[in-house]
Formats: sequence, C-alpha cells, structure tokens
Amino acid sequence: MSIDRLQQLIIEKKNPTVVGLDPRPEYIPPHILAEHMAQKGETLEAAADAFYAFNCGLIDTLADIVPAVKPQSAYYELLGPAGVVALHNTVAYAKSKGLYVILDGKRNDIGSTAAAYSDAYLGRVTVGNTTYAPFDADSLTVNAYLGSDGLRPFLETCKTFDKSIFALVKTSNPSSGELQDLRIGDSTLYTVVGDLLDHLGQDSIGICGYSNLGAVVGATYPAEAKALRERLPHTFFLVPGYGAQGGGAADVAPCFAEGGRGAVVNSSRAIMCAWKKTTTGDGSDYQEAARAEAVRMQQDIAGVVGV
Amino acid sequence: MSIDRLQQLIIEKKNPTVVGLDPRPEYIPPHILAEHMAQKGETLEAAADAFYAFNCGLIDTLADIVPAVKPQSAYYELLGPAGVVALHNTVAYAKSKGLYVILDGKRNDIGSTAAAYSDAYLGRVTVGNTTYAPFDADSLTVNAYLGSDGLRPFLETCKTFDKSIFALVKTSNPSSGELQDLRIGDSTLYTVVGDLLDHLGQDSIGICGYSNLGAVVGATYPAEAKALRERLPHTFFLVPGYGAQGGGAADVAPCFAEGGRGAVVNSSRAIMCAWKKTTTGDGSDYQEAARAEAVRMQQDIAGVVGV
Repeated sequence: MSIDRLQQLIIEKKNPTVVGLDPRPEYIPPHILAEHMAQKGETLEAAADAFYAFNCGLIDTLADIVPAVKPQSAYYELLGPAGVVALHNTVAYAKSKGLYVILDGKRNDIGSTAAAYSDAYLGRVTVGNTTYAPFDADSLTVNAYLGSDGLRPFLETCKTFDKSIFALVKTSNPSSGELQDLRIGDSTLYTVVGDLLDHLGQDSIGICGYSNLGAVVGATYPAEAKALRERLPHTFFLVPGYGAQGGGAADVAPCFAEGGRGAVVNSSRAIMCAWKKTTTGDGSDYQEAARAEAVRMQQDIAGVVGV
Repeated sequence: MSIDRLQQLIIEKKNPTVVGLDPRPEYIPPHILAEHMAQKGETLEAAADAFYAFNCGLIDTLADIVPAVKPQSAYYELLGPAGVVALHNTVAYAKSKGLYVILDGKRNDIGSTAAAYSDAYLGRVTVGNTTYAPFDADSLTVNAYLGSDGLRPFLETCKTFDKSIFALVKTSNPSSGELQDLRIGDSTLYTVVGDLLDHLGQDSIGICGYSNLGAVVGATYPAEAKALRERLPHTFFLVPGYGAQGGGAADVAPCFAEGGRGAVVNSSRAIMCAWKKTTTGDGSDYQEAARAEAVRMQQDIAGVVGV
C-alpha cells in the first residue's frame, strides 16, 4: 500500500515530518528571483521558474533527511498556467529523489468530476491510444463535504495506481470549529467525517496498520487530535499547524500512535524562509538554513514522539 | 456589484441558465479532435487545443442567448499544464464575448492559502513591479468546510475587484446528505452553511438584492432548495443537477425567487453533447445542436420560472 511507503520512509529517516513547498515570491532568495527575471523579465514564467529552481534546491538539500514534501497547489495556480508547469515539474523532481509527494489541493466534487481530479493528480488520462499520468503525485488532499460518492472516485484511483489521499477532518485555522465542531447528537461534525474516512478506508489498510485514506488533523487543536487518534486507529494523520501557525512538538504529539507511527507533521514557512534568519540574511545560504531548520524540527518532534 | 451583472445578463437574455464547459475527449466532435491530433499527435497539448477550439465554437454559437458559462476546472487539470492553458484561454474568450464566467474549482484552504486561490482566479499577483490577473474569472466556486476565515480572503478579493463566489451548500449528488443533512439541533449542516453565507454576504448586496456570496444548491433536492430559497433571500443560487443528473424544470423552480430572479441553472453535458443526438451524429453540426438544446432549456426553465 502507498501509505506503507510513507510510513517506511518516516521510519528509515526517523523523521515524521513533511516539508511544505508553498513558494511565494517573498520566500525566494532574491538572487534566484533576480536570475530568472533577468532571463524572462517580470513575468509569471520567470516567477514560476524561480519557484521551481528554489524547490529543486530545497529538495536537493533535504532529500536524505526528510521523507516527504507537500506542494500547496494554490501558490502555483497563482502564477497561472506557468505556475502549474512548475508544480508538475516539482512533483516529478521530488519523486526522482525518492520523496513521497503529497499534493495539497483539497479537491472535491461530485462523482464524475471527482474522478477527473483524481485521474489528474493520481491517475491517468488517455488521448487517442496514448496514456499519460498528468501529475502522478503519491497522494492528494481532498475535502469530504460532498460525502462518500465524492470520495469514492479518489479511492478507486488509489486502488488502481496505489496512491493515497488525505481528507480534511479538523483543520488548523482559527475558525475551523465554526462548522467542524458543530454538535451532531453526541458527536461533532469532524468526528462524523473521521468515522466516514475510517469506514471507507477499511479495504485499503496496509501492513503498517493504516489505510490509504488519511485525515488532515491540525496541530492547533491537540485535545481534538488526541480523541481522533484514539478513535481512528487505522487512519494516518497529516498534521498542519506546527511552527508558523503556533503548534509545537507537544501539540503534535497527540496525533501520533506509539513509536511515532501514524502521522506526519508539515512545516512550510519555517523551512522555506529559514534563510531570512541567518547572519547573511541574503539567501545565499538558503540550503544550509533549510537543512538546519529541518534537522531542528526532526529533533524537536522525534524527541517527543520517539520515532 | 458583480452579482448585479449576472442578474442583468439573465434578465436581458430572459435566460437563467449557465452552460457548463466540462470537456472530455468523448464530448468533442471527432473532426475537432482529429484536426488537433494531426497537428500535435496524441498529446495532452492536442487534447487541450481541441478543448479550447470546441469551447470557442460553443461560445460563438451561444453568446447571444446565454448569460454565463461555467468551465469545470477538473477537466482541464486532467490534461496537466496544457489543460490549464486551455482553461485560461477559455475564460478570456468567454469574457471577450460578454459572458459572465463562473470558474468551477470548489477551492478551499486556510486564510493565507485561500488568499492565493482567490488572487489566482479572481484577483491579481505581482512579479517585481508588474501586476497580472492570472485567470480573472468573474466568479469562483468554493467549499466552506474550513469556516469563515477560509471564506473571508475570497470575499476580500470580491470586494477589491468586484467579483463573486458561490459556496457549496446542498450539492446535487446522491450522497450529498451524508454530511450536509446531519441534524444540528433543530437545523441541518447545509442550513447552517447557508446561514453563514447569508451573514458573510451582508455587506456585498447589490441593487438586484443579492450578495456577491452565492450558494450552490442542487436541483435534485427541490424541497431543500425551496426551504433555502425562503431562508436566504439575499443569496443567489447556482443550481447544478438539471438534465443529465435528473432534475427537470419543476425541480429547479423552487430555487428561484419571483420573476425568475436569484438563481442560475447549469447544464453541461446536454448542451456539449447535443450533436450526438442529431441525424448526422458526426459532430459536424455541433454548434446548431448546442444552440437548439440551449434554446430548449431556456424555454423549459423560463416557461416555469417566468424570467
């Protein structure tokens, strides 16, 4: 199962973290942006090329110590079609370096359209008699608001091509509770969503004990995460909210099962922008700075959850 | 307000419908696909060029009688970056013909990332000192599961650039009720979401009486639509589920206020694939067939709701 590969990479590297690749122009060392703008002017293509070059530099310096990366689609779409080229190439480059790639797109739609999304990011498309894998990520984030027939096409693709998905359960943002915490009888909406994932994931549980249908559970709500961890023993958690959003190692700990299993914690900005806090501050040492922050995060989290 | 423009176009054309541009290779007349594959082979680029050519042909034949089009992003993303080029160009072409363009992407994320999506599809991005409008649609569909701080960035962009969004409330698919119909006290989840939209939309109500924050309400649940229509007098409804999904004119009628105001009904497949039902059946008359179906749909719906 795909999820076994993620869990195995985490164990091998003793590192239950995923590096978010969420580039914004202001996160990119000025010399990289300048180089590409010198070639292509102040264009979306130049920014997209800079995004990709920055990502490749980060991947090169992190691939031996982190198990996974999570490009956030929004930041690439923001550059129009050129940005989507950078996203596509980032996925391919990260995979070529052995990383597990979680494409963060939070896609959702009714059945036939959900199938188009899942074919796009995890599956295949055929033109004439020729078949392509348009993005070919290992995993995709999705939103479950449409119910199980909005999720099933993604699960079918996961089954056919051995991929995984992570559906939003309890998100890390301040107003996540407005809808997600609503009382449903003795339960809450996010718990009902978690139960649905647990149910739908039952036939894709790998040897690691987790299914290919994971859950997004924010580090900023540790009490809720603890209850979900106990309730959903076969659901792998993707955990945003560490670092810039305020969560620390103690906050992410409840997302993990024993031995640091069953969860992966995302950090984006702290790693991508680590260069802004070094003595040079000019971005020339962005790789060393990112690696140092990734090591610090690994030690911080592994020290608490014991992977 | 942006929503005034949509309502005005509907009134001018006496047509409360939107044409879904959801191309799949099998929806495209064979001669169009063949022409582009002859030029570029069995490639994603050829398929994307065929999508765009087909869309332009549909827009040319429909622009004087329909107010709006709704490209479904999934089908373009399915062709990778080349498909996103076709999406971008389709939005631009439809706008150049005076159509209101609702980009159906069902985007959602936490605040800063939601801002990237809304800047991408409705707003602007700056590279160096140069500003671009990456997609520049009139409207975008979104998913409200993250709560109000996931919606507010979209509303900010709507305010700055005079755009609209439609958030999922009660979707048209068979399992939409699994989560959306859950009881919340005396209410349901979809009603709570609807109330949230009503609240957040209060400061963007146009002269037409509706706000720039609309709701997606499926035609396949007419009783729920009727209750929502009464409850949310300032919320414009985008109504999927007519035609191929089983809803008829009587089913969409409850989504409308008096005089056929306050809603727009989508049809995709019936119009795009109308050529398959003509006597030639070879797609050579796809424009005439699409126009005939669009006229039939206008008469069917306008006859019942009286726009």
